Amino acid sequence: MIYMDNSATSPIKEEVFNAMIPYLKEEFGNPSTFYTLGRNAKKAVEEARENIAKLINADTKEIIFTSGGTESDNMAIKGVALKFEDKGKHIITTEIEHPAVLRTCEFLESRGFELSYLPVNENGIISTEDLKNAIREDTILISVMHANNEIGTIQPIEEVGKIAKENNILFHCDAVQSVGKIPVDVKEANIDLLSISSHKIYGPKGVGVLFIKKGLKLELLIHGGGQENGLRSGTENVPGIVGFGKAAELAYEHLDENIAKLKQLRDSLIEKILERIPESYLNGDRENRLPNNANFRFSSIEGEGLILRLDAEGINGATGSACSSKSLKASYVLSALGLEDEEIHGSLRLSLGTENNMKDVDVVVDAIAKVVGELREMSPLWDNKNNVSLELDESKFTDSNN
Amino acid sequence: MIYMDNSATSPIKEEVFNAMIPYLKEEFGNPSTFYTLGRNAKKAVEEARENIAKLINADTKEIIFTSGGTESDNMAIKGVALKFEDKGKHIITTEIEHPAVLRTCEFLESRGFELSYLPVNENGIISTEDLKNAIREDTILISVMHANNEIGTIQPIEEVGKIAKENNILFHCDAVQSVGKIPVDVKEANIDLLSISSHKIYGPKGVGVLFIKKGLKLELLIHGGGQENGLRSGTENVPGIVGFGKAAELAYEHLDENIAKLKQLRDSLIEKILERIPESYLNGDRENRLPNNANFRFSSIEGEGLILRLDAEGINGATGSACSSKSLKASYVLSALGLEDEEIHGSLRLSLGTENNMKDVDVVVDAIAKVVGELREMSPLWDNKNNVSLELDESKFTDSNN
Ligand SMILES: Cc1ncc(COP(=O)(O)O)c(C=O)c1O
Ligand SMILES: Cc1ncc(COP(=O)(O)O)c(C=O)c1O
Repeated sequence: MIYMDNSATSPIKEEVFNAMIPYLKEEFGNPSTFYTLGRNAKKAVEEARENIAKLINADTKEIIFTSGGTESDNMAIKGVALKFEDKGKHIITTEIEHPAVLRTCEFLESRGFELSYLPVNENGIISTEDLKNAIREDTILISVMHANNEIGTIQPIEEVGKIAKENNILFHCDAVQSVGKIPVDVKEANIDLLSISSHKIYGPKGVGVLFIKKGLKLELLIHGGGQENGLRSGTENVPGIVGFGKAAELAYEHLDENIAKLKQLRDSLIEKILERIPESYLNGDRENRLPNNANFRFSSIEGEGLILRLDAEGINGATGSACSSKSLKASYVLSALGLEDEEIHGSLRLSLGTENNMKDVDVVVDAIAKVVGELREMSPLWDNKNNVSLELDESKFTDSNN
Repeated sequence: MIYMDNSATSPIKEEVFNAMIPYLKEEFGNPSTFYTLGRNAKKAVEEARENIAKLINADTKEIIFTSGGTESDNMAIKGVALKFEDKGKHIITTEIEHPAVLRTCEFLESRGFELSYLPVNENGIISTEDLKNAIREDTILISVMHANNEIGTIQPIEEVGKIAKENNILFHCDAVQSVGKIPVDVKEANIDLLSISSHKIYGPKGVGVLFIKKGLKLELLIHGGGQENGLRSGTENVPGIVGFGKAAELAYEHLDENIAKLKQLRDSLIEKILERIPESYLNGDRENRLPNNANFRFSSIEGEGLILRLDAEGINGATGSACSSKSLKASYVLSALGLEDEEIHGSLRLSLGTENNMKDVDVVVDAIAKVVGELREMSPLWDNKNNVSLELDESKFTDSNN
């Protein structure tokens, strides 16, 4: 199997697995208990917290464990909204946020908040001018993701943070796809709230973090026994947290080397695909993207068919984002780039992992070239003689039907 | 080590651990993806759902995975409150609920809801007459726990369910301590919402369930990608869910035998402690309690000192509940029974597990008798000559100070 869907989820690294084992076995204590077994669990949680703080240049007290990126996004945005609604009910976000942010914003709209959704250009990047223009007297929060989960484009979060600070507005950043893949520094980017998820960085599923800047008080999402410094109740997922901590440690140690390696693989993948396959295009900015993300579109192709045929060849990729790939609606992220539904349906996201190598890239390129060729052969939209797509011209279709 | 704090958390059973391993290793797919790896993960989640549904006599569609009991309680209570606030803003609960329920209710009070807290009698049981009297025109929810986490007393939930139904009010039941320990049947008890937690039944931490009766729509707690039938977003904690499912399967298969075994151990523990140790008492109803719970109080003893000395002997027990044992405030549950602070401070909860045996009971009884004796020897409140406590008579203390 060649796995190239690391933006959906990533395999747990062996060191991470090994670190978790004792906490799934003999060290099963509840960190809230104060006998030895409980204190051992507590200590392990605190060590993990240090590793995560280090990865984003935060203090350990600013790291709150949650059940994942989705909960972190909900906790941040609802927490600010409910805490500061007396100050204002306007929130700014972007059109290409993850559903964890977008659905949360829609919930707030249903409860009287007003949202501004920033558009992106054809490369998937917001304009800071748009951001400045969107700011109002009653704006309490700006939520802009760091790297997009579908197209991997990276937003100018340092500029966003500067604008937020100048205007005395809180800044939440969904960094689920970027942390551990590219440098993230909460201090440098003036970030007040930052969401992270363990399973995107070779840690276990079911655990995440919300970074909350020192001094910032939110309304809580989950009330109860007072764990996580009173900010997120519930018995701590100790093995998950320990695994997350180890994954963060590894990500920190190998950051530069992973970036270099993945960029090389990604660039080779992009070059070879664009060269080998006629009418293939890259979605999203060519430079300003995650080192592990390549998102293509092929004319006259249905992405779902492509995925299933690649699966049969032992290759895993995605169309749209994993979270919405069950629905066959066209990706809203690719729509925001200005693409038509037909173009979007022919899209394929390949997200590389540190386990991939150059041979994987070559095997995958060969397989895609083969499968795309086969699918086009059967497609009424492809001119096999001339190896070009028939133009998607409404009038033409009408003609041929006559 | 002899572990008798299973109400705080329980060790993962070996079968559970073994079931989780593949999903921490090669089967790491995201259930939302539709290639083989993702479908395998999805299938595993659905199998776990079946096992949990069976344990509480629910349908699989009624089982929603969460991050734990605390999230389930929050999701249920806030979900009803926000969905039905136009119908009414009154909620009935009890004085001895877990903090996950009580803090959630207080949050709702801060947002305009009105709460009625039912008292309990000296044995820790509510009165259904009190419940009937508390019902108002605008009551939208009754939240009554099944078994209490500190004293193990079991509430008459079938009667509560009947009253709720007769009055057309929703019924949420926190069954975190009872599921897997005693029979729980959501249909028989007319339950609309029921909270469960994996780590209390020998499953992994960080995963729980909210049972939501078919047809009931709640406002969501966590918005996003639409997992769990759109009701609880976030990439599923697949290994955790698989472990939880296996734990539920084992609990179901061995329910009767575990009840019989634990009752025998518990009864022996209670008899021997009350017989061996002067001025020792049982907290909570003698009969109407969980098969694995024994909660004692010893006059002239500080619970914290007792716990630490037992820890040194390799024995784990709790004072108060794990979730609040960090704070040295007297247990509100024991207060609700009508006990004085001095009595409460001398309390010890022993919660048995299926791994315990009669030898453990004897070792623990010996150790407690020894440690209680030693602590009392040093206590100014204990009359060592006559082996009785000096009366806690305010005037007496004042006298001796004069
Ligand atoms: C950008 C982004 N935000 C949030 C999430 C949600 O994280 P999780 O799957 O841990 O709930 C994801 C992944 O699904 C993501 O890619
Ligand atoms: C009765 C009760 N409800 C809720 C909870 C919270 O469950 P969890 O620890 O899974 O968040 C607990 C345990 O701490 C409990 O005993």
